[in-house]
Amino acid sequence: MDPVTDALEEIHHRLGALREGRVADYIPQLAHADPDAFGIALVSMGGNTYRAGPADTPFTIQSVSKPFVYALALGDLGPAELLRHVGVEPSGNAFNAISLEPGTGRPANPMINAGALATTALVRADGPAERFARVLGCLSAFAGRPLDVDEEVYASEAATGDRNRALAYLMRSAGSLRADPVETADTYFRQCAVRVTAADLAVMAATLANGGLNPVTGVRVVAEPDAVRTLAVMATCGMYDGAGQWLLDVGLPAKSGVSGGLIAASPGRFGVAVHSPPLDASGNPVRAVAALGEMARRFGLHIMHNSGLHAATVTGAERVERAGRSIAVVTAQGGLEFTETEALLYALRDLTPPEPGRLVLDLTGVSRALPGAATALAAVLADLVARGHRVAVAETLRLERAAAQGHAPTWAVFGTREAALTWAAGEDGA
Amino acid sequence: MDPVTDALEEIHHRLGALREGRVADYIPQLAHADPDAFGIALVSMGGNTYRAGPADTPFTIQSVSKPFVYALALGDLGPAELLRHVGVEPSGNAFNAISLEPGTGRPANPMINAGALATTALVRADGPAERFARVLGCLSAFAGRPLDVDEEVYASEAATGDRNRALAYLMRSAGSLRADPVETADTYFRQCAVRVTAADLAVMAATLANGGLNPVTGVRVVAEPDAVRTLAVMATCGMYDGAGQWLLDVGLPAKSGVSGGLIAASPGRFGVAVHSPPLDASGNPVRAVAALGEMARRFGLHIMHNSGLHAATVTGAERVERAGRSIAVVTAQGGLEFTETEALLYALRDLTPPEPGRLVLDLTGVSRALPGAATALAAVLADLVARGHRVAVAETLRLERAAAQGHAPTWAVFGTREAALTWAAGEDGA
Amino acid sequence: MDPVTDALEEIHHRLGALREGRVADYIPQLAHADPDAFGIALVSMGGNTYRAGPADTPFTIQSVSKPFVYALALGDLGPAELLRHVGVEPSGNAFNAISLEPGTGRPANPMINAGALATTALVRADGPAERFARVLGCLSAFAGRPLDVDEEVYASEAATGDRNRALAYLMRSAGSLRADPVETADTYFRQCAVRVTAADLAVMAATLANGGLNPVTGVRVVAEPDAVRTLAVMATCGMYDGAGQWLLDVGLPAKSGVSGGLIAASPGRFGVAVHSPPLDASGNPVRAVAALGEMARRFGLHIMHNSGLHAATVTGAERVERAGRSIAVVTAQGGLEFTETEALLYALRDLTPPEPGRLVLDLTGVSRALPGAATALAAVLADLVARGHRVAVAETLRLERAAAQGHAPTWAVFGTREAALTWAAGEDGA
Amino acid sequence: MDPVTDALEEIHHRLGALREGRVADYIPQLAHADPDAFGIALVSMGGNTYRAGPADTPFTIQSVSKPFVYALALGDLGPAELLRHVGVEPSGNAFNAISLEPGTGRPANPMINAGALATTALVRADGPAERFARVLGCLSAFAGRPLDVDEEVYASEAATGDRNRALAYLMRSAGSLRADPVETADTYFRQCAVRVTAADLAVMAATLANGGLNPVTGVRVVAEPDAVRTLAVMATCGMYDGAGQWLLDVGLPAKSGVSGGLIAASPGRFGVAVHSPPLDASGNPVRAVAALGEMARRFGLHIMHNSGLHAATVTGAERVERAGRSIAVVTAQGGLEFTETEALLYALRDLTPPEPGRLVLDLTGVSRALPGAATALAAVLADLVARGHRVAVAETLRLERAAAQGHAPTWAVFGTREAALTWAAGEDGA
Repeated sequence: MDPVTDALEEIHHRLGALREGRVADYIPQLAHADPDAFGIALVSMGGNTYRAGPADTPFTIQSVSKPFVYALALGDLGPAELLRHVGVEPSGNAFNAISLEPGTGRPANPMINAGALATTALVRADGPAERFARVLGCLSAFAGRPLDVDEEVYASEAATGDRNRALAYLMRSAGSLRADPVETADTYFRQCAVRVTAADLAVMAATLANGGLNPVTGVRVVAEPDAVRTLAVMATCGMYDGAGQWLLDVGLPAKSGVSGGLIAASPGRFGVAVHSPPLDASGNPVRAVAALGEMARRFGLHIMHNSGLHAATVTGAERVERAGRSIAVVTAQGGLEFTETEALLYALRDLTPPEPGRLVLDLTGVSRALPGAATALAAVLADLVARGHRVAVAETLRLERAAAQGHAPTWAVFGTREAALTWAAGEDGA
Repeated sequence: MDPVTDALEEIHHRLGALREGRVADYIPQLAHADPDAFGIALVSMGGNTYRAGPADTPFTIQSVSKPFVYALALGDLGPAELLRHVGVEPSGNAFNAISLEPGTGRPANPMINAGALATTALVRADGPAERFARVLGCLSAFAGRPLDVDEEVYASEAATGDRNRALAYLMRSAGSLRADPVETADTYFRQCAVRVTAADLAVMAATLANGGLNPVTGVRVVAEPDAVRTLAVMATCGMYDGAGQWLLDVGLPAKSGVSGGLIAASPGRFGVAVHSPPLDASGNPVRAVAALGEMARRFGLHIMHNSGLHAATVTGAERVERAGRSIAVVTAQGGLEFTETEALLYALRDLTPPEPGRLVLDLTGVSRALPGAATALAAVLADLVARGHRVAVAETLRLERAAAQGHAPTWAVFGTREAALTWAAGEDGA
Repeated sequence: MDPVTDALEEIHHRLGALREGRVADYIPQLAHADPDAFGIALVSMGGNTYRAGPADTPFTIQSVSKPFVYALALGDLGPAELLRHVGVEPSGNAFNAISLEPGTGRPANPMINAGALATTALVRADGPAERFARVLGCLSAFAGRPLDVDEEVYASEAATGDRNRALAYLMRSAGSLRADPVETADTYFRQCAVRVTAADLAVMAATLANGGLNPVTGVRVVAEPDAVRTLAVMATCGMYDGAGQWLLDVGLPAKSGVSGGLIAASPGRFGVAVHSPPLDASGNPVRAVAALGEMARRFGLHIMHNSGLHAATVTGAERVERAGRSIAVVTAQGGLEFTETEALLYALRDLTPPEPGRLVLDLTGVSRALPGAATALAAVLADLVARGHRVAVAETLRLERAAAQGHAPTWAVFGTREAALTWAAGEDGA
Repeated sequence: MDPVTDALEEIHHRLGALREGRVADYIPQLAHADPDAFGIALVSMGGNTYRAGPADTPFTIQSVSKPFVYALALGDLGPAELLRHVGVEPSGNAFNAISLEPGTGRPANPMINAGALATTALVRADGPAERFARVLGCLSAFAGRPLDVDEEVYASEAATGDRNRALAYLMRSAGSLRADPVETADTYFRQCAVRVTAADLAVMAATLANGGLNPVTGVRVVAEPDAVRTLAVMATCGMYDGAGQWLLDVGLPAKSGVSGGLIAASPGRFGVAVHSPPLDASGNPVRAVAALGEMARRFGLHIMHNSGLHAATVTGAERVERAGRSIAVVTAQGGLEFTETEALLYALRDLTPPEPGRLVLDLTGVSRALPGAATALAAVLADLVARGHRVAVAETLRLERAAAQGHAPTWAVFGTREAALTWAAGEDGA
């Protein structure tokens, strides 16, 4: 009994009947793909995997490799330097468009072929062999298992890859590619021919959704800011010429590939992957697009939909009598981001009178706090203490360490609410 | 003492020194704007307002009106019908670009002038006077106070508005506009000349961030899905030709106007507005863009950054001895969306053995649950009961009502954890 | 018995069977045109008219008016000033394309609607009524008879002319149009609704081919350089998006209109017009395009085909004994342009030895000489005389007048070859 | 003493002072070109050469090779087949633009690099070595002397030719190029590195102007229709993005190259070439463009300027009394093309009454007649004879041979006017 699997299976069952689209046929190896192959996998931030249909069928990753290699290059060069070579604007064009910026020859974004070629060429390495080894290593780390290359697909891609060679030559002539064009195209063909399953892709997407930390293996694959940047680029450039419609309908950063793979990432929630070879006119897998739309509607996952659930950070703001003294007690729970911290500080301010008094802040239900939140909180507490309040905090977050960096931590810290209350009701209060 | 205000003031102070950009001068009324005017306002989901600089200086709303009127038209026509008239794809062009879809004459998106004209013309009304009254009413509801028109600016816009009239004629000739072109342009000029302050715009943005419910007045202005759609369109089309870079750097849906206004919305968190007349080459206010970038970095607000804080839904999963019986106790807190529910169900499944046992689910810390979450939870509980488990739930969410729609609610419900534990340890358990 | 008419009739007969294309139907008045209407007319430089089919059926001139009004505006403003407002580059786009130059808003050329609107607006006049009167007067002078307006077509064009109004507004907003947009469009609609016949259009085209002098009425309509410029613009911009193919196949400057008219001009030879309403996908009349291709092939009229016929300028270069003296005699005929003059001068140089001798230049067969040719010839003759030659010229061209402007005309001039020979054989020779 | 040379030298002298433009520097071998090098050469249809400045300085032909190799390919494939691979429309873009037709991948025209690469690859040959040998042989035949390759320039072009390789790969991937991309680019680099002088280029241009027959060597290099087609393509596509302006101002088909060469051809008149390395922003040689403009103005060479000089074909149309009989005598001279024939036939018809009479047609001054003209004339004469006229023709054109192909040649033919008159006045007349 598992409602997530239930939902995926219901979607899988219904969309299995969808008979639209055409399997890519520009090379025989892709044309032979089974049009009925249809697998879904979802990996949560806790590393749990849910599946529907055969999610272990191998296929080549193709363009779905692009965001992951982009994240790798972000780590190698840093965002500013990488931006000098590869743009981040949607091109409004097909995947193999020649979208080079006039003047600089910079490709529009890393999700079109030109940008992907440039990105691959920028991965730091001594020569193409090491470069591909790093690319394969990166993809494997995202997937959480060693991946390999489908040599037959690679050979076919290489045999028909004139357009990508053309793009590479164009970029070298424009000065936006330093590497050898033929070698660069070759590395990229190998990258596209890396073999994955829907389950692999779901782990890879979940790793991006989890800020670069693989939720299954626990390994940090890329730095968090680079995962965030990669998702941002996927949001505007990942779905070719329908980026606006996709973000409107599905509301998740995504990337598709010509072999029928599609990934989407819900930041902080999960990664999902669908495999189904038949493609629509834009080159996106028909069943995968429909499945994601269905999941978004059903699970309420739209990135612009953030329905105020987090507002319940402050679960209590009351006055408690203890030992004949009135103590203001503010209780909070959950994680402290901007919004939660704002709500907490607002409650504190509201409850504490101008004249000195007694305050207990119960943070034992708070699981984690962003550094900024901790700093802000410490500042407010220090201010209250300075104004004569007797302040006790029950917490396990080690707020004092943040606070110590700027303010004298003169409030008392306890491990439990009870201990804090007891101390706050003590003699030496205001 | 208020760290949010502190941060805003620090940003305001630092960026006040920025002397780049040029005040728009295509009409004298805009050219006279004070280049030093610089106000910031932020409104949280709790309806709290934070300010830095003069946030009550009036100026005309200009293009910042576009997303709000789009949300209004979404409600009038529904998304499918509106999409037939106005696209949602980034145009990669300047604000006054002629981005009409070949064949249909449909403007690319509602954030460029052509799309805004078409959107305004679609607002349901008997004639232009009523149409503008509805537009003004909508903007006022978003702002939470009655707004009015700067008649002088309106007159100047009307006198120099040939390009917008041209766009309207083009669309009527292409069949994508039914209304009279000159009247449509006139209504749009009045819409752009509506007078607002930075504080107003922050409330308006916060209303979008809050799913269409004005967090200050408590009035629902537009339906939640329409607010979500509007934010999605802002994310890809709101910042003219730098949408990709903006989403990468700032990571928030936004919209700017030629009079120096800029809004951004952090879904479920806050709305923010900056007013500063000098514009950069793309037509975006220089200080406002810098301020948003700074806030995003400082507050960690990037929409793709969702750092797993919510994962701490399950705060306890343990076995408790009570009255000599071993009871599995799962404790959760916060809001239950997809991710939280998934984590909770996973914990339940993990802790309950195949053979019948005793289970307490403590949801007293759970503030709210999406309907889907409640349904899924009820299904799992019903299944456990059916398999012979003795299940008690401590909650105030009325899960049973959701459950009753599909499953016999045979588990026990209590208001406190203690009561649930006591009952779970009772005689008639497994 | 007339071979030109024979050829036209044969072409007319054969192409009458062509059943492709569709009559324009954007207004009912055009949609009612008879698809079988098919007339051809050709007017030679001598003013002779040849016809096949009904060449007197009236129809509205539509876009065929564009080159004539352009020629009028060239006269009003001069080419440099007109170029500041209307470009001369092919746009590679459809007739109603928005081809405004970035920055200036200048339309690409006067053969697309935007350029035609701008051109009409530049015709010098006090107000729209006088402006249209001048346009109508110009078209009538080209046709050699008073033309009038089809008021019904005009009214329909005005009722459906939003796109042209849009173009006019766009240009005024871009600063490339000063006049009132609605008035400008209205004048242009009247211009397009002027009623002509195929025979009229042939006279009009012949007037351009004849350097602006109407070969039927003998009236100079526009200055010769302006006629030449107009033909040059027609050559690159007249046939919409197939300019290159048209110049390759037909090799004549041409212009077509939506009502089925097509004109072509063979400079210095003739003007031709065809009327046949069904249009191809590019908006050009199917039978007219085919008829022109046929004529070009059959008559050898390609503008790049200039088959050396003129090389026979020098018909004799010999030594003649007269009165015991050897006289070099050079005989020429025809017109003297650059090439002919070059050939003549070369023969003179070739036949005259370094030492002084006797020379007769028989130009009695020369019908006309360009001023530059006469000047060059006079210079060479003066040089020969200065070097001691006894030179007699038989001519009626008044070469001496050209010569007198720079050289002492010391050669003898006679009306006949015989007189020249007699004098050249005289006593006082070298 | 030579006025043509005088004019060229005057232009050369004046423009030598022009100091604008920049020598191409993308390879060192071009960057070293002397910016003061400035030579002009003109070759007439009679094969005479005129020069100003050093016209024998060698430089590489670069893009000026394009029209000549296009003419060669026209002969190899025929125009219809070649058109399937290379279009003929102006691209409105820079010389190295990627103007491939959507769908087919066909380059826009043979004057841009993509089209030139495709054209070179289509030259029939067994392998690249033979292909280049044929290209070199063709260029040499146009120049009238064996040309060779500047190996140093070739090597540099090859080293920096990535953009051309990119274009070749793009075309192969689009299916519009079958040959090996790297080999094709290499052949093209060698073609561009062929060494010529201004004098060579003038002969080459004159050969095109002369219908493909080299006027200096007398060798036919390409068929006349192919020369005409090549000039038509030069007229619309030869001067990059200023084709319309060039045709307006100069009115001659032309082609420029990056090493400073520029050719122009006046059909039936001459070919001209200028060499001057500094280029303007469009990549055209500054002094060469100015020199051509000057020549066009001075010599009256505009292709749309055909000033009615040929109208004087009929030099006499009179009634002569001879032996008491009235004889209609029509005298003509010059070449008989369409226009001249039309004028002659018109005079014949005008002078001959319905009732049978006597007619002499004096064609002794006619130098040449197009086949169509001879046929039309023979038809008219046969008709007159059939109607009972006594017709004598004085001519040396062998009209009867054309006539015999369709009509009984029953008119009398004589070598002189006098003999014709005598016979026409004879007894057996009407």
